[in-house]
Amino acid sequence: MKDLTEKQLSSTHIFKGRLLDVWSDEVKLPDGRSSVREYIKHPGAVAMIPVLPDGKILLIRQFRYPIGGVEIELPAGKIDPGESLEETVHRELEEETGYRAGKITKLTEIHPCIGYSDERMWIYLVENLTKTETNTDGDEFIELLPTELSQCMEWVQTGKITDVKTIIGLFWAEKLLFQK
Amino acid sequence: MKDLTEKQLSSTHIFKGRLLDVWSDEVKLPDGRSSVREYIKHPGAVAMIPVLPDGKILLIRQFRYPIGGVEIELPAGKIDPGESLEETVHRELEEETGYRAGKITKLTEIHPCIGYSDERMWIYLVENLTKTETNTDGDEFIELLPTELSQCMEWVQTGKITDVKTIIGLFWAEKLLFQK
Repeated sequence: MKDLTEKQLSSTHIFKGRLLDVWSDEVKLPDGRSSVREYIKHPGAVAMIPVLPDGKILLIRQFRYPIGGVEIELPAGKIDPGESLEETVHRELEEETGYRAGKITKLTEIHPCIGYSDERMWIYLVENLTKTETNTDGDEFIELLPTELSQCMEWVQTGKITDVKTIIGLFWAEKLLFQK
Repeated sequence: MKDLTEKQLSSTHIFKGRLLDVWSDEVKLPDGRSSVREYIKHPGAVAMIPVLPDGKILLIRQFRYPIGGVEIELPAGKIDPGESLEETVHRELEEETGYRAGKITKLTEIHPCIGYSDERMWIYLVENLTKTETNTDGDEFIELLPTELSQCMEWVQTGKITDVKTIIGLFWAEKLLFQK
């Protein structure tokens, strides 16, 4: 295997906003030349596949400003400082859907955006759900959309669902639930 | 269905680098309050599933600076100004792998990063490959990794492959090739 490693020569902080933390680094390429890498530093996130008592998947509808439309998604959210992955799953599930989980299982880890972000995201299966009081975040407006898995997979195939964490979570759900 | 739409009140250009184009908009939420949305404007991209004459999937290994490691991926790349999706597929395939495609088929469209980027990515099945001369981009260092589909899927399951476009492309390949 070739040495493909790029080494940091210098790092410049471009912008720190409410959400985005933007950096530009000068790097040394494997052949000795230099280049620039611009990227986002991200705290990491979780996404979850909540399975309701009737077997439906608890999807949500949410407006996504960068793409200018409402997306059908799995519940998800960023890790708060000091929070464990499990704590983030429980907090985001309750904030976004108003459910509590009796059982959560880590399935896999993904990188949504390796070209320009260091974001890592962990996907959990979330079961034994019980309803609490919905308490959505101040600037999140969310609609619940409980959906049969077969319908979810049709929406993946036809392109009605385009969000990557949701597509990957649903493929995992299909594999797991068909194996049961 | 609730009205979940957020409306732009103002838009501020934060940074335009070699790769990243960063914006911060003030938006009006569905309840009338205002909030801030920070995001990347992206030209769009393609990813492709190249199937070699022996049936293997032509994966590549590439160092990804934001996550600090070598990733196993499907070939992919950004759309150049004025380029059609098909032209991008042919150009990136040849630049990254040194192959030409006799047949390309659009499979699906994904949004890798709806939280903070408007990036859209189209995934193609790429067949009837013939070898040309490899001509990789100036600052891309790439190693070819032709891999049996069953091995690819094992790497998805075990978390050796974490890149979202690659995972989604491989799930599509599995469905298509098992249907044949």
